[in-house]
Amino acid sequence: MAFIPCLKLYNYNMSEKYVHDVETESALAEKSFEKKIVFSGKAVKFHADTVILPDGGKAVREYMEHPGASAVLPVLSDGRIIFVRQFRYPVGRETLEIPAGKLTGPGDDPLIRAKAELEEETGYKAEHYDKIISFWTTAAFSTEVLHVYAAHGLIPGTSHPDEDEFLKTEIMPFEEAWVLLQAGKIMDVKTIIALQAWKIRLLEEK
Amino acid sequence: MAFIPCLKLYNYNMSEKYVHDVETESALAEKSFEKKIVFSGKAVKFHADTVILPDGGKAVREYMEHPGASAVLPVLSDGRIIFVRQFRYPVGRETLEIPAGKLTGPGDDPLIRAKAELEEETGYKAEHYDKIISFWTTAAFSTEVLHVYAAHGLIPGTSHPDEDEFLKTEIMPFEEAWVLLQAGKIMDVKTIIALQAWKIRLLEEK
Repeated sequence: MAFIPCLKLYNYNMSEKYVHDVETESALAEKSFEKKIVFSGKAVKFHADTVILPDGGKAVREYMEHPGASAVLPVLSDGRIIFVRQFRYPVGRETLEIPAGKLTGPGDDPLIRAKAELEEETGYKAEHYDKIISFWTTAAFSTEVLHVYAAHGLIPGTSHPDEDEFLKTEIMPFEEAWVLLQAGKIMDVKTIIALQAWKIRLLEEK
Repeated sequence: MAFIPCLKLYNYNMSEKYVHDVETESALAEKSFEKKIVFSGKAVKFHADTVILPDGGKAVREYMEHPGASAVLPVLSDGRIIFVRQFRYPVGRETLEIPAGKLTGPGDDPLIRAKAELEEETGYKAEHYDKIISFWTTAAFSTEVLHVYAAHGLIPGTSHPDEDEFLKTEIMPFEEAWVLLQAGKIMDVKTIIALQAWKIRLLEEK
């Protein structure tokens, strides 16, 4: 497969810096009545806030306060994709994922974080990045926004994962990853979204 | 646009009943050392478990225990898609989403839940369903598995959302939804995955 020039995957218009402002003018809006952090962890905070519903009633909304994250689909010049295999404790499984990591806080730039995670987890640096999409992983139960990029012009180097991160790099042709996705062997959300976006691009270029 | 016959979107092989078993044979596996529920809510439980890492060290994993959920991409015979607009408190925004809802527990069948949610939220019943995919919304911070279906042969009826659910139904051509997705106006994860799957199907049928 030939090198694919770096076009935008989507005509993506949203601001890079997602601001967690509240749409108060919405007729469906739930207004915060009482904010309550029930657990303040190292990586996330757990909330059980009481809200006022559009009809004046009250309800409790349980959710995770998450700093957001960035993920990278690294595409080699021959079309192969770089993945990382790691163990995800909440789902009790080894997962095949694209490289990704949490933002360090509200001031962290998603693209800079994407670049750092690619290098930390795989050792590769990329010459250029295209934005794919940003999405809410769980709009009903988390504040997390996940920013996804495609990376091209990859140059290998040495990986240096976090202290409590155990990773294996796996490189495979896109077609092989697509078969795994179809077989239910790739279940990680950002990886599915990135591979679907790439599939659409390949189909549209045909 | 003509009626699209109900083919499988993916050659999807995973068991419908996702069992939260742990891969202990993995060299990357993190083993549970101490399970700790820090908050037990109405909808979810919040955990901060201590785990033993592959090198024998310890780390804390903070995550949400979620029963799983089902979502439906309802496709009318003319190709239009049925969405629901609702307010999602954690992200502070009105969202445009496909109908969806939490499983009631481990014994709840994802397809039966999908059917119930479509009818509750939109009033529509469907003659047949195709599985699209199942995925982990946040494998690092939640146990949630989300099952996504496409629904066809839709028959309108009366909606009856939950007591604390305020929804508006919105019907639009797929192409219009795709423009919204590209413009960053659709950020809900299950909606993006379902629309991308549908886009791939439309491109492959060309």
